[in-house]
Amino acid sequence: MRVLVYGAGQLAQMMYLAGAPLGIEVEAVDVNTETLVHPVSKLPLEATLAQAIEAADALTVEFEHVPEHLLEQAEKSGKLMPSMEAILVGADRVREKALLDNLQVANCPHRIVTQLDELDRCLQELGDKLIIKASRDGYDGYGQWRLTEAAQLEDIKASLSGLNLQQVPLIVEQMLSFDRELSLIGVRSKSGEIKVYPLTENLHYQGQLHVSVAPAPGVTQAIWQQAQEIFTRLAQGMQYTGVLAVEMFQCGDTLLVNELAPRVHNSGHWTNSGSDTSQFENHLRAIVGLPLGDTQARTPAAMVNIIGCGAFSRDLLSIPGCHLHWYGKTVREKRKMGHINLTADNYQQLGNKMAQLAGYVPSEAFPMLPDEAEKLSKLTEKP
Amino acid sequence: MRVLVYGAGQLAQMMYLAGAPLGIEVEAVDVNTETLVHPVSKLPLEATLAQAIEAADALTVEFEHVPEHLLEQAEKSGKLMPSMEAILVGADRVREKALLDNLQVANCPHRIVTQLDELDRCLQELGDKLIIKASRDGYDGYGQWRLTEAAQLEDIKASLSGLNLQQVPLIVEQMLSFDRELSLIGVRSKSGEIKVYPLTENLHYQGQLHVSVAPAPGVTQAIWQQAQEIFTRLAQGMQYTGVLAVEMFQCGDTLLVNELAPRVHNSGHWTNSGSDTSQFENHLRAIVGLPLGDTQARTPAAMVNIIGCGAFSRDLLSIPGCHLHWYGKTVREKRKMGHINLTADNYQQLGNKMAQLAGYVPSEAFPMLPDEAEKLSKLTEKP
Repeated sequence: MRVLVYGAGQLAQMMYLAGAPLGIEVEAVDVNTETLVHPVSKLPLEATLAQAIEAADALTVEFEHVPEHLLEQAEKSGKLMPSMEAILVGADRVREKALLDNLQVANCPHRIVTQLDELDRCLQELGDKLIIKASRDGYDGYGQWRLTEAAQLEDIKASLSGLNLQQVPLIVEQMLSFDRELSLIGVRSKSGEIKVYPLTENLHYQGQLHVSVAPAPGVTQAIWQQAQEIFTRLAQGMQYTGVLAVEMFQCGDTLLVNELAPRVHNSGHWTNSGSDTSQFENHLRAIVGLPLGDTQARTPAAMVNIIGCGAFSRDLLSIPGCHLHWYGKTVREKRKMGHINLTADNYQQLGNKMAQLAGYVPSEAFPMLPDEAEKLSKLTEKP
Repeated sequence: MRVLVYGAGQLAQMMYLAGAPLGIEVEAVDVNTETLVHPVSKLPLEATLAQAIEAADALTVEFEHVPEHLLEQAEKSGKLMPSMEAILVGADRVREKALLDNLQVANCPHRIVTQLDELDRCLQELGDKLIIKASRDGYDGYGQWRLTEAAQLEDIKASLSGLNLQQVPLIVEQMLSFDRELSLIGVRSKSGEIKVYPLTENLHYQGQLHVSVAPAPGVTQAIWQQAQEIFTRLAQGMQYTGVLAVEMFQCGDTLLVNELAPRVHNSGHWTNSGSDTSQFENHLRAIVGLPLGDTQARTPAAMVNIIGCGAFSRDLLSIPGCHLHWYGKTVREKRKMGHINLTADNYQQLGNKMAQLAGYVPSEAFPMLPDEAEKLSKLTEKP
């Protein structure tokens, strides 16, 4: 079988590696050049894009910001999964909010703004702690503005003045004081079967995901129930096929959806070590029509992103249960270069291993490790 | 980093898949054409063999029957691991027996025969139940003759008469009544660190491995101790680097070494699902000088070979903990087409899953499943 992935980064690479044992050949599309490349070596492949679409059993994406004319071409083949509509929900916060509201899925109080002077009314209605996001192309901390007191409004308006808000509206959200960010990665088959991984807790630093821990500690039955209901409502509502990631804020006993990613997701990378079937394999199984694999966590796991950093001792591999995933890219500031998966028998041991890991990597690139290691090493909860 | 593997079959493919996350690029050598191919797609690569040897950080083999002039060229580079000597031990039973005897590792009573009339003395000294093997190119049941009563000797002599026994001597072994075959897969680093996986029990049918179960049930402390000592003596004795597989017969409380494979091994394929670090990853880690990974079994696991069969329902993937490894080859009788890994929380569950699996595959190609499933499903032992 053949699967064509739009995007040729690490997610396409990990899909390729998951597909090969199943006899699924994954090819990647460089969406800038509109040519085919090998998902691991990035070397050009012989076929044209049109030929590859023809030959593929399924088409999918590794990121939501695929140029629309390519998505349209893919959708026309009848083999794009998830659908173009679902992908655009991930790419456009206006569509995303509309979907959440239509499906009555709780999310942050927000307004959609198409003219700058509407911001004053947002302040009146939502309060003076706001996050303002461009509705498109926002990604990992870029294209966001934070307003923490009314006096900042004029400065923010000035920096927004160059934007065409008719074309790309703003989403203005109430800044919530949430307890933590959780994500739920799940998968829906063509026939509607749904399986979800355990909730993952995500730790960010300067707008970027640095550490994920799964199963998220301290998840009550009520939260777990809510998360599953949210996932089911979204996946069914979109008639979704494949892996879908739902980012949520936990505020006490309530989950509010923050963002959807219509694809395999960074906060699901731990599944390569900590669960029986990785998110990559399950995504492929779903879109080519194979039965879904087990999504339970085998053991507690952590995923640590390697960001803007290439120099660290490979001796970290001497930690039992430590696995490196290196993406083979040129080092750039803030760039995701790879990640490290850790598994352990329990949270305490996971914390101890994370503390060990911190000894092998430069602390400035891994600022979240020491505190999280300490927190985990004190947990007596059984996962 | 780059690793060049002599041989372009499924073992090279699985090394490629294990290497990519570590940033290790694995290339394969088709030893017939002496050209480079991609280990998964088998498409030709641009470099020549000489260039690839030059560019590689390490050279290794996926099978021991690599033409000697290629091994010599590889050995000259100083990067071949394991060494040519260790590889030839796996390819030549005369060398193998000499090594076992030199290192005082228990093995089957045997004689080396270079003239047909020596067979009569073998009968006198070893008894009239014998296995006669060509010392080279014997592989998976081919090139073996069985003598179960003295009267057969003349017929066997006749069928051996075409062989050049001076060049390729015969190994004549006493046919032992052993309890079972076990293998120990382990790995030795460049610096001499050794890690071994748990013992694996192997079930053969018509000379081919059909099912492996790990950890082998019912292993006493004495057997486990012996296995580790045997592995250590062999790996240290050869100054071995990489994964080494030791096939042994268990006769009561004693282990006798049957065969060595200087490479990743079919009976270690379960490590992809049942242990933290697969044999493929550990082989690569060893030969490029990375720390070895954890070799403990996470759960009981079984590996089921798919032999000479391509038609089976992919719905077997609906069994939780079931993973397919398909090699993408044309179906031929007796050919290893792929394998299926199963994991479970305990042996009973493993047996139940194996019984489920038997429902998805043609029984004539998987003759060992029903009995083994039943046996496992009755085991109360904790792995």
